Amino acid sequence: MRIGFVGLGIMGSRMAARLLGQGHELAVWNRTAGKAAPLAARGARAAPSPAEAARDAEVLFSMLSTPEAVRESAVARPDTFLPSLRPGRIWADCTTVDPASCRAMAREAAARGVRFVEAPVAGSLLPAERGELVFLAGGEAADVEEVRPLLLAMGKKVVHGGPVGAGSAMKLAVNILLGGAMTSFAEALRLGSALGVPRATLFEALLGVPAAAPFLAGKRRKIEEGEYGAEFPLRWLHKDLHLAATAAYAEGIALPVTNAMKELLALAAGAGLGEQDISAVCAFLQRGKLP
Amino acid sequence: MRIGFVGLGIMGSRMAARLLGQGHELAVWNRTAGKAAPLAARGARAAPSPAEAARDAEVLFSMLSTPEAVRESAVARPDTFLPSLRPGRIWADCTTVDPASCRAMAREAAARGVRFVEAPVAGSLLPAERGELVFLAGGEAADVEEVRPLLLAMGKKVVHGGPVGAGSAMKLAVNILLGGAMTSFAEALRLGSALGVPRATLFEALLGVPAAAPFLAGKRRKIEEGEYGAEFPLRWLHKDLHLAATAAYAEGIALPVTNAMKELLALAAGAGLGEQDISAVCAFLQRGKLP
Amino acid sequence: MRIGFVGLGIMGSRMAARLLGQGHELAVWNRTAGKAAPLAARGARAAPSPAEAARDAEVLFSMLSTPEAVRESAVARPDTFLPSLRPGRIWADCTTVDPASCRAMAREAAARGVRFVEAPVAGSLLPAERGELVFLAGGEAADVEEVRPLLLAMGKKVVHGGPVGAGSAMKLAVNILLGGAMTSFAEALRLGSALGVPRATLFEALLGVPAAAPFLAGKRRKIEEGEYGAEFPLRWLHKDLHLAATAAYAEGIALPVTNAMKELLALAAGAGLGEQDISAVCAFLQRGKLP
Amino acid sequence: MRIGFVGLGIMGSRMAARLLGQGHELAVWNRTAGKAAPLAARGARAAPSPAEAARDAEVLFSMLSTPEAVRESAVARPDTFLPSLRPGRIWADCTTVDPASCRAMAREAAARGVRFVEAPVAGSLLPAERGELVFLAGGEAADVEEVRPLLLAMGKKVVHGGPVGAGSAMKLAVNILLGGAMTSFAEALRLGSALGVPRATLFEALLGVPAAAPFLAGKRRKIEEGEYGAEFPLRWLHKDLHLAATAAYAEGIALPVTNAMKELLALAAGAGLGEQDISAVCAFLQRGKLP
Repeated sequence: MRIGFVGLGIMGSRMAARLLGQGHELAVWNRTAGKAAPLAARGARAAPSPAEAARDAEVLFSMLSTPEAVRESAVARPDTFLPSLRPGRIWADCTTVDPASCRAMAREAAARGVRFVEAPVAGSLLPAERGELVFLAGGEAADVEEVRPLLLAMGKKVVHGGPVGAGSAMKLAVNILLGGAMTSFAEALRLGSALGVPRATLFEALLGVPAAAPFLAGKRRKIEEGEYGAEFPLRWLHKDLHLAATAAYAEGIALPVTNAMKELLALAAGAGLGEQDISAVCAFLQRGKLP
Repeated sequence: MRIGFVGLGIMGSRMAARLLGQGHELAVWNRTAGKAAPLAARGARAAPSPAEAARDAEVLFSMLSTPEAVRESAVARPDTFLPSLRPGRIWADCTTVDPASCRAMAREAAARGVRFVEAPVAGSLLPAERGELVFLAGGEAADVEEVRPLLLAMGKKVVHGGPVGAGSAMKLAVNILLGGAMTSFAEALRLGSALGVPRATLFEALLGVPAAAPFLAGKRRKIEEGEYGAEFPLRWLHKDLHLAATAAYAEGIALPVTNAMKELLALAAGAGLGEQDISAVCAFLQRGKLP
Repeated sequence: MRIGFVGLGIMGSRMAARLLGQGHELAVWNRTAGKAAPLAARGARAAPSPAEAARDAEVLFSMLSTPEAVRESAVARPDTFLPSLRPGRIWADCTTVDPASCRAMAREAAARGVRFVEAPVAGSLLPAERGELVFLAGGEAADVEEVRPLLLAMGKKVVHGGPVGAGSAMKLAVNILLGGAMTSFAEALRLGSALGVPRATLFEALLGVPAAAPFLAGKRRKIEEGEYGAEFPLRWLHKDLHLAATAAYAEGIALPVTNAMKELLALAAGAGLGEQDISAVCAFLQRGKLP
Repeated sequence: MRIGFVGLGIMGSRMAARLLGQGHELAVWNRTAGKAAPLAARGARAAPSPAEAARDAEVLFSMLSTPEAVRESAVARPDTFLPSLRPGRIWADCTTVDPASCRAMAREAAARGVRFVEAPVAGSLLPAERGELVFLAGGEAADVEEVRPLLLAMGKKVVHGGPVGAGSAMKLAVNILLGGAMTSFAEALRLGSALGVPRATLFEALLGVPAAAPFLAGKRRKIEEGEYGAEFPLRWLHKDLHLAATAAYAEGIALPVTNAMKELLALAAGAGLGEQDISAVCAFLQRGKLP
C-alpha cells in the first residue's frame, strides 16, 4: 500500500520502519528533516511537507507529541496533510491526545470526506522496535478493520473500544496505570533506601512481586546507573496525565491520585528532568533529604 | 519443630495450616477463639492464651493486624507471649509494621534474651494458601537462616534485607507498589467508563499491558460483579500506607503520591468500604459523578 | 452611558443593578429570560438576544459561568453579541476564565475592531450587592481607564495587572487562595470535631486567628445550620481550580496543593454538592468516618 | 509567682520575657545554655537542668519543638523536670504536640500528682513579643483557670476546648489553616508570576481580599527580598501537619489537602529550606520551571 507517515520521533521512526519492512511504499515527513534520512536510506521517500507525505497516500499515519502538534501538521498551516488527503482515504492518528481533541480532528476529517481512525499505542521504544505495540483504536468498525493489517504490522494486538474518542480514552487509562506504577515504584525505592535497605536488595524484593508492573524490570539498569536516556520522556507522561485530568474534569469525575502523580512529574520536569526517561522521577525523589 | 502461632486471620490461618501440613507441632492462639477450631481439627493445639502458645515453642510466629495488636499480644498484658518464650528461642513477627515499631519489639525481645526476626510477607490470600508468599526478612543473618526452612514451608522466597527494620522497610515498599497499582487501576477504569468505553473492553485494554501489575487480573471478577469480599481489606492497605507515610516523615523524605493514595483510601473507608477488598476503591470512585 | 449586560446570575444581576442605580441606560440579557424581570422592573431594557443587548452599547459587560459560555454568547451562534458591537466600542468580560481563553476572546474582538478588557472580580454575593468587588483587570491601559468609572460603580477597587490575560491570571490566583482557605478550614473543622472539640469552641479558636481568611466568618452560619445555599457554588470553584491547573500545565509549573483541592471539590461535587455553596465541602468531609 | 520555664527558642524566649516583665520569679532552662543569658541579664535564674528549673516552681511551662523533645526534658532522662515538680503543682505545656502524646504526658503527670494543662499557642514571633498570642487550652477547668492569668500575661486570649487533648486538637486545626493559607499563597504567586503579572501587582491583588489570611501581609517583605529568616520554621509546620495527619488516621478520617500540603513542605525541606521561614515554600515553587 501507499502510506504517508508524519512524525518520526522515538516511536514514529520505529513504526514507519516496520511498515517499510513489510514492503509498503512510504512517504515520510518530520519537522526536523534529518530524522527522515535513515528511512530514506531504506527506500522511503522523504516528503518536503506534510501535504506531500499525504498526497498519494491510501492511509496517512500521524505519530506526534501533542494535540497541538497534530493540529499544526494536519490543518493549521499551509502544506498540512489533511487538505491533501483524497476523499475516502483514511487518516490514522497514533498520537496520544485527549478524547475531545480527537473528536475535533475527526470532524475536520469528515468535513473533507476523509475517514478518521484513532489508534494510540500502549508500549514504548522496545515494543515499537519489535512490533509488539498494542493499538487502542476508536472509529467506525469498517475503517478500523481496514487499517488493522497495517496496525498488526507494527504491533501485536488491536483493541477496538468504540467510536472516535474510545481509543484515546483507553490510552489515557493505560497511561494512568503507567504513571501509577512508575511513581509508586520511585516512592517505594525512596523509602526503602532511606530506611537503609541496599538498592540491589530492594530491586530483588520489589521486582517480581505480583504488585510490580512488568515494565519496571526494564527500568532497573537506568536507575542503577543513573542514566535516564528516554524510552518514554517524562514530560510526555506529564502531558498524558494532564490530558487525563482534563478529560476527567469534562466528565465531572475525580482522579485524586492521577492528579498527585501529575504534579510530582511537573516538579521533576521543573527540576530539569522533562526530557529524561519517566524513570528519572526516581532521581528527583532521591535528591532531597532533610538534613 | 515445636511452633507457636499467634494470629489466625485471613493470612495467619493459611500460614499455620501450611506449617502443620509439613509435620510441625503447632500451638495456636487467636483473639476470637473460634478461628483456632479448623486448625485444632487438623492436629494443632488451641492454646488458651498467647503465653501458652509460646511456652514450649522453639519458634513463635505472630501474624497480626497492626503494631498495636502486636504489642498487645506480645508484652502489654498478662498472659502475653514474649515473657513466656524461653531465652535463646526465636520470635518471628510476620505482621506488617513500621520499622520503628519493629525495632522497639526487637529491643523488648533482646531484653528477655529472645532472638527477634521480622518477616512480613508480600502476597495475600491465594499465595498464602498455595505457599507462594515472599518473606521480606530483617534480623541477624544466623537467626534468619534458622527460620528460613519454616518460612519456605509457607512461601517460595525469602529476601533478607539487613538488620531488624529492613524487612518492614521492604514490606512498606511493596505495599506502596500495591497501592499505586490498585488506585491507578481504579482511576483508569473510572475515566474509561466515564468516556463511554464498555468495561469488558477496558479490562481487555488494560490487563496484560506491561504497565499493569499481574495481581490486577485477579481483581477483575470482584469488580465486574461488585462483590468485594476481602482478600486484602482496604483498611489494612490504608494502615500500611499510613505506616509508610510515618516512616517517610521520620526519615525526612517526601512521598506525595503515596500520601494521595492513603487519603483516597481514607475516604473510601469513611464511606464504609474499609472491611471490603482493596479493589472496592473502584466502587468508591464509581459512585460519584457530577450531574 | 448606554451599557449592555449579558449574564444575570448571582453576580451579574447584582452588578447590573448597581450600574442601573448610577443612572446608566441598560440593555440586559440572560439565557433564562425570567432573570431579567427584576431589572426590567427598575428600568432596564430586556433584550431578546445577546446581539440586541449589544446593538447600541458603548460598553458591553459579560458575566457568565465558563469560558465556553462566553464563547457561546459572544460569537459561536447567530444573534451573539460580538458581531453586533460597533467597532471602537468596548467589551468588558467579567467572567472567570483562563488566560488562554481570554486572549482568544481578545483576538476575536480585535478582528472586529472591538476593544477588549477583561475584568474578573474578587468577591461574591455580598460584596457584589454592596458594590465592594475588586476588579482584576487586563488590557490596554487606555481601555481599562475608560471602563474604570463603571467598574468603580460596581466595586471598590480596580487592579490593572497588564495586557489581556493578566486579569485572569490574578483572578485564578485569588481563587487559589479562596480554595486554600475553604478546604483547609473544612479539614481543620473535621479534625477538631473528630477529636471531640465542640463546634462552637472550634469556631471561637479558628475564626479571628491571623491564619483565618476573613471571609470564613461569613460561612459560620451555613456550616452550623447545614444549609449551604450558594453564595459561590462549589462547582464554580472546582472550575476555577481546573482553569488554574490548566494554565499551570501550559506554563510548565507545579501546583500540587491546588490540584489536591480541585480533586477534593470534584469528589464533593460528585457526591451531589456541586450546586451548593463552597462551604458545603465541610459537609462532604463530615460524612465519612471509619466505623 | 515562682515559675519554671523550659525551652527558650524563638517563642519560649519571648514568652518567658513577658512573664519576667510582669514581675514573676523565673528559673529558666534551655538545651543550648547560651539562650538563657539575655533572660538572666534581666533577672531570671539560669537553671543547670530541667529538674532545677522545676524544683521550686508553682507552675512549670514548657515550650519545646516536638513531642519527643517534651518527653526528653520531662521524664526520659535523669535531671528532667517532671520528677522534681512537687505534687499539686501545675505543668503547662505550650508545645505543639498531637492529642495522643498530650494525653500520655498528662498520665505521666497524674502518676506523680502533678496537674497537667496543655496550652499550645496560635501566633508566632511578633505576637509572642507583643503578648498577643492566643492560647488553646485543654485540661481540668480549675487548672486552666489557675494558669489563665499567666497565659494572659503572654497572650490576649485563652480558649478552653475541653479535657486534655482538646488544646492540641485546636492547635492542629489552626495550623492546618496556616498551612492552607501559606501553601495556596505560594501557589497563587507562582501561577501569577508564570503568567507574567509583576509581583508587586500580585501582592496588591492578593493581599487584602477576603480570601487572604491576615498574616500573609507580614510575609511580603521576606518573599520580595528572598530572605527567609524564620519566624516559624518550615520544618515545624511540616511536623504539625504530620501530627495532624497522624491524628486524622487514628480517628479514621481523611484530610486530603492537608496531606498534600505536608508533602509539599517535605519536598521544600528536602531541598534545604527546613530551617527557613514557612514562606520559603514560595522560593521552592519558584525554582523549577519547565524549559
